[in-house]
Amino acid sequence: MKRLTPTERTTLKRLPKRGVYDLAGIYPILDEGFICHVGFAIDGRPYVIPTGYARAGDLLFIHGSAASRMLRALSGGIEVCVSVTLVDGIVLARSAFHSSMNYRSVVIFGVASLIEDPGRKLEALTALSEHIIPGRWDEVRKPTESEMQATTVLAVPLHEASAKVRTGPPIDDEEDYELEVWAGELPLSLVTRPPIVDESGRQGIPPPSYVLNYKR
Amino acid sequence: MKRLTPTERTTLKRLPKRGVYDLAGIYPILDEGFICHVGFAIDGRPYVIPTGYARAGDLLFIHGSAASRMLRALSGGIEVCVSVTLVDGIVLARSAFHSSMNYRSVVIFGVASLIEDPGRKLEALTALSEHIIPGRWDEVRKPTESEMQATTVLAVPLHEASAKVRTGPPIDDEEDYELEVWAGELPLSLVTRPPIVDESGRQGIPPPSYVLNYKR
Repeated sequence: MKRLTPTERTTLKRLPKRGVYDLAGIYPILDEGFICHVGFAIDGRPYVIPTGYARAGDLLFIHGSAASRMLRALSGGIEVCVSVTLVDGIVLARSAFHSSMNYRSVVIFGVASLIEDPGRKLEALTALSEHIIPGRWDEVRKPTESEMQATTVLAVPLHEASAKVRTGPPIDDEEDYELEVWAGELPLSLVTRPPIVDESGRQGIPPPSYVLNYKR
Repeated sequence: MKRLTPTERTTLKRLPKRGVYDLAGIYPILDEGFICHVGFAIDGRPYVIPTGYARAGDLLFIHGSAASRMLRALSGGIEVCVSVTLVDGIVLARSAFHSSMNYRSVVIFGVASLIEDPGRKLEALTALSEHIIPGRWDEVRKPTESEMQATTVLAVPLHEASAKVRTGPPIDDEEDYELEVWAGELPLSLVTRPPIVDESGRQGIPPPSYVLNYKR
């Protein structure tokens, strides 16, 4: 897969060796996560909104949960900065200064555009559903025309992006390695708990395997 | 605890009943999370950076991992929008349209200021460490003067903020409840994996209880 050209905005200033510009490094992070934080500015003032997303090729689809404010801001094509962050663990160094976290994060800069064509919109909604919970789309009742109209989907091109990754043990100052302090990593991960059936509506339907075996 | 006055920016436009303005609702979300997304604008262009944080009273301390860009932007006192998001589960409705997530999120608007006084800075660093991994501060080597200088801590007042919370089962359209589709919640949670000792440096130190019993 190709490597993106670092720009002024995507070039890591601090700890440049943590920067990743290869799509082969960026895409798997986007494909593992499912919540992004979308930043945009209105009259120079910043807003950040968490929302679900999915990647399809070199597009990131975002799904407006705070649709109205984003939408108003979007008319005219607004610049966004989208951030996806996976936290993999806490890094316990022997010094406070070198204590850190292990993470994989992606930042994307671009102009978000509204997907208006009904066919493309349905494809994007399918991608969002299948990204967040693969297998679900085939079973749910599909959107009606008025539901489609009430739904906002934006696309951001994955042309100006970079990833930042930290893995592994702490890196301490040479003289600190002999301190009597436990050091290492405390890995963190997102797991599912047993599904909770909705007690309203039709009962006796077994939970589907894509729910029981859900894994990111 | 007091209730914040909703402002133009913190008033929920969509689904207003999900909005929480009481500090008693906002603070526990901030205290459970430890990664925030900080949004700011430079020349009207948005940036979003993930970083660690801690709350102390009505201040949010943020710790600059992308220190340089944030710092440059900050000289002069820049507006930020800080977002903290806890994802509690996937909500499987019978229709695609009503499918959702359970989450607790907080958004804070304010002007970030640099903490420069060494005493206050050390307090803030202690708060950050103790928020992210309680018990650790007492054991690590404390920051030297030059490490302190290389560290950036910002404070954002918790005066203009709101939380947004969704809990519980899906809310479907009346006529969909009889569909032959499993519906409910798939809870998600962040867990720790067994700690990984750093194989460099002094060995034979048992992992401390605050690592073994870590829980958010």
